[in-house]
Amino acid sequence: MTAALLNPLVTRLSPPPIPAVQAWGKDYNGSFGPLIDLSQAVPGYPPHPDMLRWLGEAASSLAYTNYGAIEGEADLREAYAAHVCELYRANISGANIHVTSGCNQAFICAVMAVAKAGDTVLMTDPFYFNHETTLSMLGIKTGLVECGAAKGFVPTVEAVEEALTPGVRALALVTPNNPTGAIYPPAQLQAIFDVCRKNAIWLILDETYRDFLPSDFGVPHGLLSEENWQDHLIQLYSFSKSFCIPGHRLGALTAGENVVEEIAKIMDNLQICAPRAAQGAVARALPALAEWRAGNRLEIEARAQALSENMTDLGGWRLEALGAYFAFVRHPFEDRASAEVAEHLAKEAGILSVPGEYFGAGQKQFLRFAFANANAGTIRQLRGRMLDLKL
Amino acid sequence: MTAALLNPLVTRLSPPPIPAVQAWGKDYNGSFGPLIDLSQAVPGYPPHPDMLRWLGEAASSLAYTNYGAIEGEADLREAYAAHVCELYRANISGANIHVTSGCNQAFICAVMAVAKAGDTVLMTDPFYFNHETTLSMLGIKTGLVECGAAKGFVPTVEAVEEALTPGVRALALVTPNNPTGAIYPPAQLQAIFDVCRKNAIWLILDETYRDFLPSDFGVPHGLLSEENWQDHLIQLYSFSKSFCIPGHRLGALTAGENVVEEIAKIMDNLQICAPRAAQGAVARALPALAEWRAGNRLEIEARAQALSENMTDLGGWRLEALGAYFAFVRHPFEDRASAEVAEHLAKEAGILSVPGEYFGAGQKQFLRFAFANANAGTIRQLRGRMLDLKL
Ligand SMILES: Cc1ncc(COP(=O)(O)O)c(C=O)c1O
Ligand SMILES: Cc1ncc(COP(=O)(O)O)c(C=O)c1O
Repeated sequence: MTAALLNPLVTRLSPPPIPAVQAWGKDYNGSFGPLIDLSQAVPGYPPHPDMLRWLGEAASSLAYTNYGAIEGEADLREAYAAHVCELYRANISGANIHVTSGCNQAFICAVMAVAKAGDTVLMTDPFYFNHETTLSMLGIKTGLVECGAAKGFVPTVEAVEEALTPGVRALALVTPNNPTGAIYPPAQLQAIFDVCRKNAIWLILDETYRDFLPSDFGVPHGLLSEENWQDHLIQLYSFSKSFCIPGHRLGALTAGENVVEEIAKIMDNLQICAPRAAQGAVARALPALAEWRAGNRLEIEARAQALSENMTDLGGWRLEALGAYFAFVRHPFEDRASAEVAEHLAKEAGILSVPGEYFGAGQKQFLRFAFANANAGTIRQLRGRMLDLKL
Repeated sequence: MTAALLNPLVTRLSPPPIPAVQAWGKDYNGSFGPLIDLSQAVPGYPPHPDMLRWLGEAASSLAYTNYGAIEGEADLREAYAAHVCELYRANISGANIHVTSGCNQAFICAVMAVAKAGDTVLMTDPFYFNHETTLSMLGIKTGLVECGAAKGFVPTVEAVEEALTPGVRALALVTPNNPTGAIYPPAQLQAIFDVCRKNAIWLILDETYRDFLPSDFGVPHGLLSEENWQDHLIQLYSFSKSFCIPGHRLGALTAGENVVEEIAKIMDNLQICAPRAAQGAVARALPALAEWRAGNRLEIEARAQALSENMTDLGGWRLEALGAYFAFVRHPFEDRASAEVAEHLAKEAGILSVPGEYFGAGQKQFLRFAFANANAGTIRQLRGRMLDLKL
């Protein structure tokens, strides 16, 4: 009997990259000491004890057992809207918020709200791999905005304009960037937003790492205060990194009220509502743990500092960009693909990183280090392991 | 400045039906006593106290804070596989299980694994509305298999064969059925599965309500023991109803190992993994609360019995089908659409039900009663409220 067919848009996708990278670590013989895992973007410290307590209280409560509002718990929508207002000096309300099961889900919701199979969505090159695979599996075409090392991996207005073609519905950006760590200056975001407006396309702005902007950075951008921002902007956020709770799956979208209504239709089909108990707990944590988050921002800055100090004069290795959770590192093996280098670095030196080519075919010279995973002491061990690497 | 465009496949969907129905209840003046909510399919009793305790323990544990395996926690996949083996007398393993955030998500994962925009998936008429909206928003065409009252709302082989056209990739069935309550006999499922195999299409079988089959029903079907079932069957389940925890969002797929691998790619994009703490708790509850679930099955049977006794000789109202959580009820107002009748029933008699036409354009004569929501005492109050209804 002939097997029924699978969807070619899915079968042609590579398996999820993080588990593949982590498998390399299993072949490391430990000769340099414990494995240093810089592969997945997770904070290397635990959540606040109160966070765990609130999660436990909410999860054991009868109050969160039934289906909840599709758009999210009212208290979280309100608390998060207040947070956004303060952070961006903007004026939005809970009705502008849709809670999701993490920021990957926020992205697929945003994309489905504005594009269907056959439309085009622009990404940067390099891109966050789940953005690329999400679009591919939906049959949405992708266009690339070149973002090279020469311009610090920040997209230029010209590069965006060059990528615009008639079928384009949206431009997806990530700042602070995954994989490069590049931080897009507010004025640059504004200029790109103006291009989106002029061309009647959406800017989908993934700000998963915004709580790890440098502590003196100020307002991340002013887009949420632009007139009619609701007609061109969908902003995404993750509670995973800032609260150290990726396993609880929580994120949020900020958008116009009519966009939130469309996304509610999508979410009803995707999973009815985000898990409720964690929403209740995060609604409490958002104001209460502000200082703790500020402390973590300083800790991650210290890690970035340690990495940057330890990556000078390191054979042919070069730190090309650094920010928030990530460093984008040029490897010295010019004729070798990044996947080969990363595999070798994992197996021989016990350092897990993600090959640049997973973020775009043109990124073979780079590795992504998710350095937020490791404290400054561990980061200082990288140097010795990397210097000696032969290939 | 022209607003950027939204996806017409989403904007043309109606808003999610359950919140709309619940809004009608707010206009009921209480003259017959408290509102009786038979709209959403939720169990009308709380989860077991141990379930809440385990949820709380897991959610407050450091062990579940980080990202988890995409396919699900190993202990839940193993426990659920063992449960499936016992229930169906089948021989599957944890590698055949993919955990999801509820059964709506299991459905969209299954559909995306086998169909893309432009392909066709068959549903029954009437259908579960989220199946229809999910397919529409993905740009997947739908075909309908007629399932009329004359045959007890069970699809015939002939009706399936008639609906087959060249672009069909899958047939989606729900048993016990939402909205009708119809229970598909194992032999009938077998016959339909044979048609799917012969035509190399997938059978996507949603068994969200299987724990509420009559207690003497025996094995729900033998499909998981068929040779090469993996090439034609994807089976879906929800932990929402059986464990009374819809707010925690947990479901599961049973499929061939290669299908599970494809679904992992989809899930990575949809939300990386299902929320972890609830998975840990349900892994404990699955064996431990078997007796409690058996007791609930009897309770729901008693509610069905109460409904069936109270729906005889009820003016022009007629119970057309009954099973698991649902009754499909013919209303007496032949020239009125079910939405009008349901709205009137809500506002005047304080009974919330879902209009038949939400489950298919041809279902205007019916209302769906999700009677599992109400205990037998409450169910006995329906009669008086319905008898007097004028329209
Ligand atoms: C840019 C970006 N967006 C979204 C996500 C997904 O985050 P979440 O855990 O909220 O789904 C990540 C996680 O690494 C990310 O780097
Ligand atoms: C047939 C059917 N499938 C799936 C679901 C969704 O269940 P879950 O809560 O697991 O997403 C429901 C819920 O009502 C349902 O009736």
